Amino acid sequence: MRRRLLDLELDGLVVSAPENIRYLSGFSGSLGYLLISMEAAEILGDSRYWLQMEAEAPGFSLVRSGESRGLWGLVAQRLKALSLHQVGFESQQLTVDQHQRLLAALSGEVTLMATAGLVEELRMLKTREEVELLRRVAAIAGRAFDRVRPAIRPGLRERDVAFLLEQTFHELGADSPSFETIVAAGDRGALPHGRASDRVLERGDMVVVDFGARAGGYNSDTTRTIVLGDPTPEQSRVIEAVRQAQRASMALMTPGTSADAVDRRAREALAAEAHAFGHGLGHGIGLMVHERPYLSASDQTRLRAGMVITNEPGIYIPGWGGVRLEEMVLVTEDGPEVLTPASVEVAVG
Amino acid sequence: MRRRLLDLELDGLVVSAPENIRYLSGFSGSLGYLLISMEAAEILGDSRYWLQMEAEAPGFSLVRSGESRGLWGLVAQRLKALSLHQVGFESQQLTVDQHQRLLAALSGEVTLMATAGLVEELRMLKTREEVELLRRVAAIAGRAFDRVRPAIRPGLRERDVAFLLEQTFHELGADSPSFETIVAAGDRGALPHGRASDRVLERGDMVVVDFGARAGGYNSDTTRTIVLGDPTPEQSRVIEAVRQAQRASMALMTPGTSADAVDRRAREALAAEAHAFGHGLGHGIGLMVHERPYLSASDQTRLRAGMVITNEPGIYIPGWGGVRLEEMVLVTEDGPEVLTPASVEVAVG
Repeated sequence: MRRRLLDLELDGLVVSAPENIRYLSGFSGSLGYLLISMEAAEILGDSRYWLQMEAEAPGFSLVRSGESRGLWGLVAQRLKALSLHQVGFESQQLTVDQHQRLLAALSGEVTLMATAGLVEELRMLKTREEVELLRRVAAIAGRAFDRVRPAIRPGLRERDVAFLLEQTFHELGADSPSFETIVAAGDRGALPHGRASDRVLERGDMVVVDFGARAGGYNSDTTRTIVLGDPTPEQSRVIEAVRQAQRASMALMTPGTSADAVDRRAREALAAEAHAFGHGLGHGIGLMVHERPYLSASDQTRLRAGMVITNEPGIYIPGWGGVRLEEMVLVTEDGPEVLTPASVEVAVG
Repeated sequence: MRRRLLDLELDGLVVSAPENIRYLSGFSGSLGYLLISMEAAEILGDSRYWLQMEAEAPGFSLVRSGESRGLWGLVAQRLKALSLHQVGFESQQLTVDQHQRLLAALSGEVTLMATAGLVEELRMLKTREEVELLRRVAAIAGRAFDRVRPAIRPGLRERDVAFLLEQTFHELGADSPSFETIVAAGDRGALPHGRASDRVLERGDMVVVDFGARAGGYNSDTTRTIVLGDPTPEQSRVIEAVRQAQRASMALMTPGTSADAVDRRAREALAAEAHAFGHGLGHGIGLMVHERPYLSASDQTRLRAGMVITNEPGIYIPGWGGVRLEEMVLVTEDGPEVLTPASVEVAVG
C-alpha cells in the first residue's frame, strides 16, 4: 500500500470503506477510519469499538474519538498532527457530504486527492490464506446445497427452500448467508434478482437457486438451476445452452486474458438466443460478494493467477422462466479451477 | 415530496438511496434511480430489474437501461430530455465518484444541487401502515425471544443462541434478521457491538442479546440483558441503574421534546457510573435499522407523534461485562408507547 502511495506522490491515505479497513487492519466492525502514511498507521474509532479495534487491529495505533458523530473532525486533526500535505481519500466510497465535512475540518491545511479503488486493486489478487477461506465457504455452501437438494419438492414455498439452505449453512459452520438467498421458481426465474417469495413449488417447475455462505469475512456465490421432475425438452435445451456458454467462457479464464473477452465469449455462445443475459458474466468475490474485476464489456483488467471470479451466464424468458448457472473460479497458471462443488444435476425428485 | 422541491426551488430530484427509492416508489431492489419532477416520475433500471420495477413501482414510468454500468449516462439523458435546470441529488448517499460521473454526463446543461436527507425527513414520521409493520416485526422478535429464552443455558455458544433466535424469526414469518444478532456473554458484554462468537455460555454469565426481525422491508431492534442463574448484587445493581436511566429518559419521549434532551436525561441518570454508555441513546427505525432522528447530543429534532425511536442506554465495564436495554418507542400525543414486547425478566434457568 505504501509503495502505491509513493507512486502516486501521496503522503497518506484515509481509508473509509469497511471492507478495505478489514483487509488492511483486521478490524471487522462497521464504523471507523484508517490513516496510513509512510510512518504512521492509525485506526480511529468511537467508544463502541475501542476494545474490538485493540483486539483485531494490533498493527495500528488506536486513536480514540469521544463522540460517534464527530469522527471527521478527528480525522482532520490527525492529518494535521502528522503534517501530511497530499492525502488520498476513497472517492468510490466517500459520500459528497462526508467529503465536504472533511474538507471543512481541514481548513485548507491538507490537500485531498480523489483515489478510487487503491485497496480494491490489492484485493483482486487473493493470498493463499484468502483462497483457502474462499474454498472453505464455497465448500460449506456446496455441501449445504447437496444436503438440501433431495428435500426440494412440490408444496414447499420458495422461502422455505432458502431457509433450509441458510439453516444448513449455519450447521456447517458459516457465520451467515453472504446475501439474501434467491429461489425463483417457474416464471419467477425470469427475474434475475428475484428473492425467495411465498410462491409454492409445483411439479415441473424449473427453479433458479442462487446462494452463498459467509465465514471469517469471506463470501461464496453459487447458482444452480433444477427442475422438479423430468425436464421438458425446452428446459433441457435452455439449460444446455447456458452450460455451453459457461464452459466456453470459463476456458478463457487464464492469466493474461482481458476480463471483457471472457464476457464476450459467453455472449457469442448465446448469440442465437433471444433472451440471453443482460447482466455481466461475473464478478470478483472475497470480502465483498461483488468486487473487482468484473467480467463485463467495460472491464479490461487482465486476469492473473490468484484472482477468484464468478462465471454466471443465464437465459431469462419473460413469462416462461429462467436459467442461470454460476461457479466461483480461481485463476491459476494451470488454468481455471472451479471452487464451487455443489451438484450440477438438474432433475430433482 | 414535490411540495418540498418547490420550497427549495428545485425542478427535480434524483433519488439514489435504495431505501428512499423503496419508500417513494415501492421498488425493493438494490440498484436503480428515481427522477422526480413536477410532472414526471421515472424509475431507471437495467434488465435485471425491469420486471420487478414494473410490478413494484406502478406509479413510476420505467426507463430501461441496456447496460448496468451505464446508468448515470441515462440519468443525465433523462434530466436533459425533461428540460430540468436545477436538480437536487442526495449528497448524503451519492459518492464523490458517482457525483463526478453524473456531472460529466450532464456537460453543464443541468445544475446539480446538494440536498441531504429530504426523503429521510419524510421517513421520520411513520404512516399508520408503517407503524403497523413496525409493530408486527417488533412482535415477531419479541415472541421469538420469549420462545428461545428458556432454552438459553450453559454449554450453548453465543452463536447458537443467535441462530435459535434467527430460526424462530423465520418460523414466525420474518423475512430475515434486521442485522447480525448480537449475543455477548460475560466480559464480552463490554463490547457494545460484539457479535455472537464461539464463546460458550457459563452459569452466572450476564448476557447482552441485541436482536431484530425484518419483514416487508421494515425492521425491529430490541436488546435484553439476562443472567444465567441468580444475578449477583452487582449485576442487579447495574441492570437496575440502566433501567432507571431508560425509564427517566423514555418519559420525555413526547411531542415537542428535543431529541438531545432525551439523550441528556439518560446520561444524567447515570452520572454516578464510571462506565456509562458512550454511544447515542437511540435512533429512529423503519426501512433502515438506523435512521433519523437520533437521540444524541448533536440532534435537535423536535419529537413528533408518529416517530418510532429506540431507547437503549447501557453500562459497559471492561473486563467485567455489560448491560444494555433497548425498546422501540412510538411517540404519540398520549405519551410514549413501547412496541417491543419481549420479556424483561433477568434471571434465566
